[in-house]
Amino acid sequence: MSFTKYREFYNRIQNYRDIQSLLQWDSEVMMPSSGRMARSHQIAEMSKLIHELFTGDEFKHLLDKAEEDISKNSNYDKIDFKKKELKVIQERLEKQSKLPTAFVQELSQKTNIAQAKWEEAKGKKDFSLFSSTLEELVDLAIRQADFYGYHKERYDALLDDYEKSATGEFLANLFQDLKKDLIPIVSNAKSYPNPFTKKVPAALQKVFCESIPTFLGLTSDLSRLDSSAHPFSTSLGPKDKRITTRYDESDPLSSIFGVMHETGHSLYEVGLSEIQEAPHPLAEYLSLGMHESQSRLWENQVGRSEEFWQFYYPTALEAWNLKEKDLPFEKMIQSIRSVEKTKIRVEADPVTYNLHIILRFEIERDLIAQKIKVTDLPDIWNAKMKESFDLTIDHPAEGVLQDVHWSMAAFGYFPTYALGNIYSAQLYSAFLKTDPNFPKTLANSGNTASLLSWLKENVHHQGKLLSVDELMEKATGSKPSSRFLVESLTNFR
Amino acid sequence: MSFTKYREFYNRIQNYRDIQSLLQWDSEVMMPSSGRMARSHQIAEMSKLIHELFTGDEFKHLLDKAEEDISKNSNYDKIDFKKKELKVIQERLEKQSKLPTAFVQELSQKTNIAQAKWEEAKGKKDFSLFSSTLEELVDLAIRQADFYGYHKERYDALLDDYEKSATGEFLANLFQDLKKDLIPIVSNAKSYPNPFTKKVPAALQKVFCESIPTFLGLTSDLSRLDSSAHPFSTSLGPKDKRITTRYDESDPLSSIFGVMHETGHSLYEVGLSEIQEAPHPLAEYLSLGMHESQSRLWENQVGRSEEFWQFYYPTALEAWNLKEKDLPFEKMIQSIRSVEKTKIRVEADPVTYNLHIILRFEIERDLIAQKIKVTDLPDIWNAKMKESFDLTIDHPAEGVLQDVHWSMAAFGYFPTYALGNIYSAQLYSAFLKTDPNFPKTLANSGNTASLLSWLKENVHHQGKLLSVDELMEKATGSKPSSRFLVESLTNFR
Repeated sequence: MSFTKYREFYNRIQNYRDIQSLLQWDSEVMMPSSGRMARSHQIAEMSKLIHELFTGDEFKHLLDKAEEDISKNSNYDKIDFKKKELKVIQERLEKQSKLPTAFVQELSQKTNIAQAKWEEAKGKKDFSLFSSTLEELVDLAIRQADFYGYHKERYDALLDDYEKSATGEFLANLFQDLKKDLIPIVSNAKSYPNPFTKKVPAALQKVFCESIPTFLGLTSDLSRLDSSAHPFSTSLGPKDKRITTRYDESDPLSSIFGVMHETGHSLYEVGLSEIQEAPHPLAEYLSLGMHESQSRLWENQVGRSEEFWQFYYPTALEAWNLKEKDLPFEKMIQSIRSVEKTKIRVEADPVTYNLHIILRFEIERDLIAQKIKVTDLPDIWNAKMKESFDLTIDHPAEGVLQDVHWSMAAFGYFPTYALGNIYSAQLYSAFLKTDPNFPKTLANSGNTASLLSWLKENVHHQGKLLSVDELMEKATGSKPSSRFLVESLTNFR
Repeated sequence: MSFTKYREFYNRIQNYRDIQSLLQWDSEVMMPSSGRMARSHQIAEMSKLIHELFTGDEFKHLLDKAEEDISKNSNYDKIDFKKKELKVIQERLEKQSKLPTAFVQELSQKTNIAQAKWEEAKGKKDFSLFSSTLEELVDLAIRQADFYGYHKERYDALLDDYEKSATGEFLANLFQDLKKDLIPIVSNAKSYPNPFTKKVPAALQKVFCESIPTFLGLTSDLSRLDSSAHPFSTSLGPKDKRITTRYDESDPLSSIFGVMHETGHSLYEVGLSEIQEAPHPLAEYLSLGMHESQSRLWENQVGRSEEFWQFYYPTALEAWNLKEKDLPFEKMIQSIRSVEKTKIRVEADPVTYNLHIILRFEIERDLIAQKIKVTDLPDIWNAKMKESFDLTIDHPAEGVLQDVHWSMAAFGYFPTYALGNIYSAQLYSAFLKTDPNFPKTLANSGNTASLLSWLKENVHHQGKLLSVDELMEKATGSKPSSRFLVESLTNFR
């Protein structure tokens, strides 16, 4: 049957995508430094191959044949599912075919080099070393948006790659509400001392961190944890998920929350792989915001709850070779649920984090609209930091150069982090209505199985079958709203 | 120019080969266990792609165009080099095209099944479980040799895949001499106790092992060391070499020699990558025997010399957290230079190792010549073990079933191991004539730079430009001969 043939071809492309993910994972985690040049060629080669296969005549022909076939067999059971699957692919194909092969290659090569440039500039705290590269990347993004086309503003075309249906205008409104609710919490923020009175060697932190994925349901036969400069998670196959973290000897909690975050991402990927006949286009993540909701839920709703630590505090103390007096429980919880004016996004608490995102959203939206210039970015950044946090930025490594995203030309990506926070609080609140005893169970046994099972049913196994709005409405009873997030943050201080 | 176009296509294939090497490296070293199924599909996909590109019409066309172009531009400087390069590729293509697609598929399927059968038979110590499979593989190898064609004996056609220009007759003569010289050394072998009086944890061994590649010139910017069940080395790009080892807590020397061995392989690959405009077909390893010579030279000629340990003994003791009395120098050297009658090839010392290879060569040559039957193999093996080592084999897992090679239908591979030993001793002896002070320098400073530089000039940077005989004659003054190896082994006991 021609549907099967289309699927075989799709799976072949998926194989190459997984190979591409390995090339990237390895370059971040394992590769010796001098391997960079050859690796960038390998990644470019693979991008080209994937793009050519996906947008080539053979795949188009197989898709057309499959569609013909489906429309003839109208009494077939799973017909709607298959129709939707083909529609998803056709839309993606239409979008991708708008980018010329040469442009895709240029994008891949430039972003690879740009990341090295960004690293150097950040290391030397010198924005001028990255400025002209970033100008090229903004230019590439503008060309990309113009290839895609858009209704209202260019930025929407880029957003669509990460969060289908979100627009600059929609986000501006949503974020305005959120900003209004969060700034009072931040301005009242107090500073708490680090609860750790002793440094904890990375090797000791590693032991506890390596056991976290298993605690949460991500077993070691299908995952591994390593360290890398910039923590991330990736899928190299249905049963091969990789996560990374980094260790700060004076703040062992940061690596724990990092591992819980990446574990959340990987649990979502595992759940998606469990959808029947996966891999296929409907067994893929719904949106980046939904992906982020899964990481944030485990990191912030579970990991930063007092109940989680009621159970895991003794385990952690033992792994870190600390006594209660070295890290009093109350002080640790206070620190976990504190709000602090931080300059660095990835070190930010769950409240200020959203303000960091809103700042980036405002800047990149203006960059793509060509309302501001790359060379002015440090000043704009620093002014906004003053406005939202009343903080002074000393050098660009703690300001505009802190994030990797723009060096990857990933404009439109940042907003999905705040969306993830919004979705996660709303989902967790709905889950608690179905299992009000969950916090008690967590405190007594550390068991999180009912949460994972609820998420699998309501989010993971839904794949791409519904829109974000539909999924949220079905799972929580209402469309995305920032009020659950604000509620969950009110007792942070 | 059409030569450039051909080269671009060839480099594209090389990119895919490097990616394939990453897929394999990762599956041996990093991959979580449940990733196996998806990985085998990824590897199969990549193999298919590489095969299709190499044997497809587009590459043939580009090659023909390049040849036309070269023959026209007869006054071009590097013409001979380019002619030779195209000839190497054409020969490789011609040879591949001699195997019908159906046969290649059958070979791939049968060897896939055969490896599982071999593993089972070895696990159960029962040759009869593998016997009929091995008969099929011998039959396949005979058919393969007949497709290739040969002058004197069928076995030569198979050898050609691993060691171009070697023949069964040549090896038989070479190995007869070697056997005659080595058997007296083996029959005088004494047994020495393990010089380690304490176990050394893998973590302590790792620290010293990780510094060895750098000591020998394989710096950490272009290589990394990991552990795996079966040690190996691989190249993922011109400046990205990966090596692995395994740690035996009661024998830390074995991992050191393992690392020196794999470092030798990788130094050769680095040297090849330094050839101008690499990668290209003449910047590839000359033969498997020559590759093995580079690993054996560092492992046996350098690593098992008293001078190497005169310098590195204190470093090793410190890394291993041992005192001199835990591992007296004299006892360690005695053990490093000892000869022992071992049943298992991969555990054999530098003397008996060659006899293990000769035994396998004699058997596989007779198998392909249909002089002996598969069902008689255990008896033949055991009789030869009695003859060469005066050892009694208790079960086939320590006898005829110990190696994976025949289950992969890799007949003709084994001899390259002994050739590696022969070449390495001859090369080292020639090098010592140019730098007679090397052993003294090694003992005083651990410095091996002059050796690496000689090897680069005389072996690595020669790539595939000369034949093995030509290279050996140019570098050492004579064709390959076993006498240098025998000389280097005379004070082993």
